[in-house]
Amino acid sequence: MGNSESSNDGKSGSSKGRIYNFSAGPAMLPVDVLEQAQKDMLNWNGSGMGVMEMSHRGKEFVSIAKAAEADLRTLLKIPENYKVLFMQGGATTQFAAIPFNLTTPEDTIDFVETGAWSTKAIKEAKKYCKVNVAATSKAENFTHIPEESNWTLTPGGKLVHICYNETIGGVEFKDIPRCADDVTLVADMSSDFLSKPVDVSKFGMIYAGAQKNVGPAGVTIVIIREDLIGKARADCPAMFDYKLAADNDSMYNTPPCYGIYICGLVFKKLLSIGGLEKVEEYNLKKCALIYDAIDGSEGFYKAPVAKNCRSCMNIPFTMASKELETEFFAEAAKRNMVQLAGHKSVGGIRVSVYNAMPMEGAEAIAQLMQELLARSKQ
Amino acid sequence: MGNSESSNDGKSGSSKGRIYNFSAGPAMLPVDVLEQAQKDMLNWNGSGMGVMEMSHRGKEFVSIAKAAEADLRTLLKIPENYKVLFMQGGATTQFAAIPFNLTTPEDTIDFVETGAWSTKAIKEAKKYCKVNVAATSKAENFTHIPEESNWTLTPGGKLVHICYNETIGGVEFKDIPRCADDVTLVADMSSDFLSKPVDVSKFGMIYAGAQKNVGPAGVTIVIIREDLIGKARADCPAMFDYKLAADNDSMYNTPPCYGIYICGLVFKKLLSIGGLEKVEEYNLKKCALIYDAIDGSEGFYKAPVAKNCRSCMNIPFTMASKELETEFFAEAAKRNMVQLAGHKSVGGIRVSVYNAMPMEGAEAIAQLMQELLARSKQ
Repeated sequence: MGNSESSNDGKSGSSKGRIYNFSAGPAMLPVDVLEQAQKDMLNWNGSGMGVMEMSHRGKEFVSIAKAAEADLRTLLKIPENYKVLFMQGGATTQFAAIPFNLTTPEDTIDFVETGAWSTKAIKEAKKYCKVNVAATSKAENFTHIPEESNWTLTPGGKLVHICYNETIGGVEFKDIPRCADDVTLVADMSSDFLSKPVDVSKFGMIYAGAQKNVGPAGVTIVIIREDLIGKARADCPAMFDYKLAADNDSMYNTPPCYGIYICGLVFKKLLSIGGLEKVEEYNLKKCALIYDAIDGSEGFYKAPVAKNCRSCMNIPFTMASKELETEFFAEAAKRNMVQLAGHKSVGGIRVSVYNAMPMEGAEAIAQLMQELLARSKQ
Repeated sequence: MGNSESSNDGKSGSSKGRIYNFSAGPAMLPVDVLEQAQKDMLNWNGSGMGVMEMSHRGKEFVSIAKAAEADLRTLLKIPENYKVLFMQGGATTQFAAIPFNLTTPEDTIDFVETGAWSTKAIKEAKKYCKVNVAATSKAENFTHIPEESNWTLTPGGKLVHICYNETIGGVEFKDIPRCADDVTLVADMSSDFLSKPVDVSKFGMIYAGAQKNVGPAGVTIVIIREDLIGKARADCPAMFDYKLAADNDSMYNTPPCYGIYICGLVFKKLLSIGGLEKVEEYNLKKCALIYDAIDGSEGFYKAPVAKNCRSCMNIPFTMASKELETEFFAEAAKRNMVQLAGHKSVGGIRVSVYNAMPMEGAEAIAQLMQELLARSKQ
């Protein structure tokens, strides 16, 4: 968070020459987390081993995993009746694991479809249970979140799935749906996990791939209320089974140890700067710089998403022509700002400003946007 | 391989203070691989990003992944009609993925049960298809491999599954079963993958978790003949589907990028020292040091496994009493040799000597064994 890039010391392997990487994920990590990982690489804490080399059953790695879980619990104020699982395979694996664990083939999951990732979750769930698309903004190109009062939830239904932040479309829930009081709400938070405080107690389950705000790709975090665990189908793959994962402290087989270690370093970092309230404050400032540049451009930059659900993490916008966008990318590259192309399915420009993007990066892109606008008026 | 630990330079984060870690996995990695990773941590190859921070769709990571696959193909001389997939979830995930991809519920997989990992594979497969245990050494505590002439393969059966090296029991196939000419042979090579040359063309599929000889936990390598791909069941989870993985260059969703990068560094290292023939030569010398210490001890150390299938990677043995074994562990720890306890299910001592264990480590443990034997005679 806001690691100044100015502490370069000219060493090989140092932070010298770092760029602003606006990738939608995997994405920037805090410089001091990377420096700690660098320092620990051959010898963690005097153990004589790097973290990648440790037995997952040894006291060293067990202490790393326990600290990571404890710090995550503190950060998100996770209630005691929730389990924290470190799994593999990304959100896409959870799209199948959720029906295997939480439904029978006759049960229905109500989905709110707000973008490409909800669509993928729906497609996968259809293999295993009934699916009701309770609401969709597909006809409007996923540019808003359907009003909750218009959701057609299954009568007597129990499971509602939402994607809290759509990485591709840039649509983010700003409030927890009211139905959380009556149903088991399951949320894919892959791309805004730990970017702001969230009341975990309102959810049956939250899951997130790590590779946006938390750590490297290859770790998936699942936070699930205990009463939902232990009802997996008989043919649930062992590696999908939340009970097996919970009963074995996420070590039914060898977990992605190094990724968990990096996540743990990030958790400590977020705690050290004051927790998720501070993180959110910082993130809101960053995204405001960019949205202000869009809104003040008199249409030179166009953001498609309704203002009440604009993502604070992924900011898609377009310009009047391909040529202007190409010029934008070229000018950005000259200033060491990369990974700004919109997802291939939507085109345009996408600025992703996850936790580890420093304020200076958001300022630099906003500055570029203003300069290109000014240039267009000359 | 055989990184001398003598190049210590006293820096923090250097190889100073490294120990001999005989863990069954995750396990030691080559020092120079770790040093390269350390150097690249904040800025890979002048890109301004660490590898953990790169978009998996960006040219930087795509070049890393392509080089890793190409180098693995060279190392194992993988024929062109085989796909190489980088997946997640370890061998345990493949235990389910194999029936989902390669069988219908009416098909039978013939298993040869040679230890704890074959048993786990059998248990998981039973959820999805018919299973025939064609041969088992369970009654003899998994201390040998059943003679192939006694295997009762399913008449007309097509799929035979073996575990090439049993990490817990220390039993390893020394030859490819003759049935490979008639059936689709599938082998779990997690714990001896890349420890020796293997004729890939004899197998329908080879799979291996990376965390023994190849890289960090969280990467699973699947090598599969193309004609076996594309027949997944309709309810195969997307993340298990070999066709989806193959068609998307292992990037149907975000792959475990950092792990793939480390595997790639290890592949380059193995090529640089002369390929798998040299690796095997080195490994045979290492394990001979330890087996010789056992065989020359007149029963002071007892290896349970039949000599014709002793693992070159995992060497379990026992001593006459718990007290002697406790003394062994304590004496080893004094000499910076750790992770020597046998798996909890079998007890005793287990010395794992994967590729990255230097000769000096094998010499040190053999030396300890001889000294304790000599002491016992005083």
